[in-house]
Amino acid sequence: MQDSPIFLSLREQHARLRAGTLTATTLAEASIAAYQQRGKHDHAYLTWNGEQALAMAKASDTVLAQGGDVGALMGIAVSIKDIYAVPGLPTYAGSSQRLPKRWESAGPVVSALLKQLPSVMGKTHSVEFAFGGLGTNAHWGTPRNPWDIGQHRVPGGSSSGAGVSLVSGTASLALGTDTAGSVRIPASMTGVAGLKTTAGRWSTQQIVPLSTTLDTPGLLARRVDDLAFAFDALDGQLGDGARGGNDSRIPATPVLADLTFGVPETFFWDDCSPGIAETVRAAIKQLEGAGARIVTLELPGIEEAYSLFKLGGVAAAELAAFLKTELPEMIASLDPNVAARIAAADDMPAWEYVRRRTVLDSLYQSAAARMADVDAVLTPTVAITPPTIQSLQPEGAYSKANMHALRNTVIANFLGLCALTLPVGKDAASMPVGLQVLGGPWQDAKLLAIGQAIENELGTGLDILGHPPML
Amino acid sequence: MQDSPIFLSLREQHARLRAGTLTATTLAEASIAAYQQRGKHDHAYLTWNGEQALAMAKASDTVLAQGGDVGALMGIAVSIKDIYAVPGLPTYAGSSQRLPKRWESAGPVVSALLKQLPSVMGKTHSVEFAFGGLGTNAHWGTPRNPWDIGQHRVPGGSSSGAGVSLVSGTASLALGTDTAGSVRIPASMTGVAGLKTTAGRWSTQQIVPLSTTLDTPGLLARRVDDLAFAFDALDGQLGDGARGGNDSRIPATPVLADLTFGVPETFFWDDCSPGIAETVRAAIKQLEGAGARIVTLELPGIEEAYSLFKLGGVAAAELAAFLKTELPEMIASLDPNVAARIAAADDMPAWEYVRRRTVLDSLYQSAAARMADVDAVLTPTVAITPPTIQSLQPEGAYSKANMHALRNTVIANFLGLCALTLPVGKDAASMPVGLQVLGGPWQDAKLLAIGQAIENELGTGLDILGHPPML
Repeated sequence: MQDSPIFLSLREQHARLRAGTLTATTLAEASIAAYQQRGKHDHAYLTWNGEQALAMAKASDTVLAQGGDVGALMGIAVSIKDIYAVPGLPTYAGSSQRLPKRWESAGPVVSALLKQLPSVMGKTHSVEFAFGGLGTNAHWGTPRNPWDIGQHRVPGGSSSGAGVSLVSGTASLALGTDTAGSVRIPASMTGVAGLKTTAGRWSTQQIVPLSTTLDTPGLLARRVDDLAFAFDALDGQLGDGARGGNDSRIPATPVLADLTFGVPETFFWDDCSPGIAETVRAAIKQLEGAGARIVTLELPGIEEAYSLFKLGGVAAAELAAFLKTELPEMIASLDPNVAARIAAADDMPAWEYVRRRTVLDSLYQSAAARMADVDAVLTPTVAITPPTIQSLQPEGAYSKANMHALRNTVIANFLGLCALTLPVGKDAASMPVGLQVLGGPWQDAKLLAIGQAIENELGTGLDILGHPPML
Repeated sequence: MQDSPIFLSLREQHARLRAGTLTATTLAEASIAAYQQRGKHDHAYLTWNGEQALAMAKASDTVLAQGGDVGALMGIAVSIKDIYAVPGLPTYAGSSQRLPKRWESAGPVVSALLKQLPSVMGKTHSVEFAFGGLGTNAHWGTPRNPWDIGQHRVPGGSSSGAGVSLVSGTASLALGTDTAGSVRIPASMTGVAGLKTTAGRWSTQQIVPLSTTLDTPGLLARRVDDLAFAFDALDGQLGDGARGGNDSRIPATPVLADLTFGVPETFFWDDCSPGIAETVRAAIKQLEGAGARIVTLELPGIEEAYSLFKLGGVAAAELAAFLKTELPEMIASLDPNVAARIAAADDMPAWEYVRRRTVLDSLYQSAAARMADVDAVLTPTVAITPPTIQSLQPEGAYSKANMHALRNTVIANFLGLCALTLPVGKDAASMPVGLQVLGGPWQDAKLLAIGQAIENELGTGLDILGHPPML
């Protein structure tokens, strides 16, 4: 199974599909085989769509065989987080009930994807309404982190099934969303690459909203190069991509010797689980050895941003507004961990929400200015080893671990940055460790090019981590 | 005094200044003479700047005499609402205390104005923090509506001194702001023209915020043509003016026979004071007689918008956030009428604020779509005769009159439109009546061209109303 064509780079799959040496059907069948072998154990999917995906793959092959080509993602096996509306598939957004029909019409991101005829293998699990960073779900169960065969460790969230779907061979590309780290945390915890786009760049229409002001669509894949390939295939179709004069096309991969990376001295490195800071520092050292310039750079307003996050940020009030307006009947049955976070907003007065938004606006501005001094900023993606489900049971344990897991990623959301993560090794518990690369607002394409340069030097996640034990 | 050059059109002043048949000094002196004659009675200005304005006018004349020209507003007598930061002049924002120094640095609109070397005659009164539509101010007193010599009637607000400064001959152009009607109500009540720009088109930086999401800078002048002239002089310098593909330049004045005006049948006409609806209907009839096509058009979501406004909208929470964060010491001394409106937001939970913003966003979208069916929508600007100060004393009277005065104007703010008002006659109490012209979002330049076509047919305010009794 480790030699499944699902694990080939998207560029390689793309080339073989067009050369006739690989078929979409083969890819869909490989996905289905992986699902049959591991699906129950992994628990990545809430809705499996294998049969329809296979039919779609066959149609794609017919088109491909005639020289037809409707887009770079044609025939690619894709998983979609169960928070995106997808025609023909139910949306639960991780909740206990199927959402109303209006949540089954595609928005811009899904439309841009579907018109390229990928094989949509299914909808992956999400933390309920995407409101949590560990990946747990009281209604549907928590996907299993494939890197620990002994214990049930969390896969990271809220895009909890996305990373697992990639690692276990059911998809080569996964759609996730990131409001405080929900793409990067599961990517980091499952040893894959993830991209959080700049807020506003890709529309969030028809994505069940957690935070109307911070939600961002994002991508997960086995390699930064796969992210770049998929970004190229989608960004040009998504309207505002070129805002701020930034090109939609990924520039040529830069030479490391031409890049300056800022590395903060504080905050991101505090209280890391054993082996995480060490692994990330070693990766940065290797980049420096390859010619990259490393400078100390403190992002402005980090402590203020994190304080605001610990107070509840703006998402709790925004999600509460959505639920009370559109799905009031679902409030009573919320996952206790989600309910607790929303309840925290009950006492927040409107003016306090406005104050927080104003703080965020000013953080955006100062961060954008500071980021102009470097090409990107490097930090550990997640400070903690993926905790076991068991360790989260004691009173207060979930809340503490959740905040800790989100700490390093939420900074990008609160400072208005784009960001990616790529696997760079394992921690003391043999769990994957991610390097977070932060880019200035709207610099998504440049960030991906920088990520490719880093990946070229360090190797891909598959090179570094191999496959998880059971595979 | 009625033949003061201050009352000439801006185009005429501009031409004469450059032909050497009028000087900036003459204009400033005419303003000063009017101020000396009527200033105490009118009470338009919180800070009078006559001396410095005269010095500036002399400098402008020196430049003009040498053929220098730094902009179309050079040498024009201008008043600025005391909510804009203006270098060298204190800002109170209608409150009892001078705001901190940071509120004395120019933002984009004032910078765009000042670099053209106008003569800034002073800062005009405002309702405290611009939060009221009648123009009252418990700290500084309420400017007098010049159209009633017997009783002290309100001038409209919150730009309460702006219209008065024009009518009584101290300025030819006035800067105001409009969050729910604060440019259009004083313009309508004092018989001048006023423009509310599309929110986001002109920056609100360094304008003391009432609502960070609804505030808009705006202009008042004796004629729509003056508004168009000043808009042309400012808009090109203000960055986002051309957003949405709309040109910053005012198009050629259209022919009425080529225009379609939508006229709502309900809402705007309800409960109008005697003579208001009749006067506006007669003006519309005259436009129809001149060839304009009049169709019935109901704006979507009007009742919802007005309900939201009566609940307190979003401004109360936004102003409360600003005051609690930046000026907490001023909350205790607020004008009782302002304090009551802010207190109404104390119990509003954050999620309710978010809900209201979401409603506004959806109103914006449906209104923009509906406006595409016509060139503009015509309504009465204000439904009530400017009330006497005395009539506002009984418990509840202020609140009721304030809501009633704002009813027809707030719709434009809550639906994301641009709007202007022009005087079209007098009501049964012999007070000025305004015709409101609503345009689609970002259609400000087109709206002004349409306003010019209307003004060409109906005559200017000076043609229709003449000068107020005491002048």
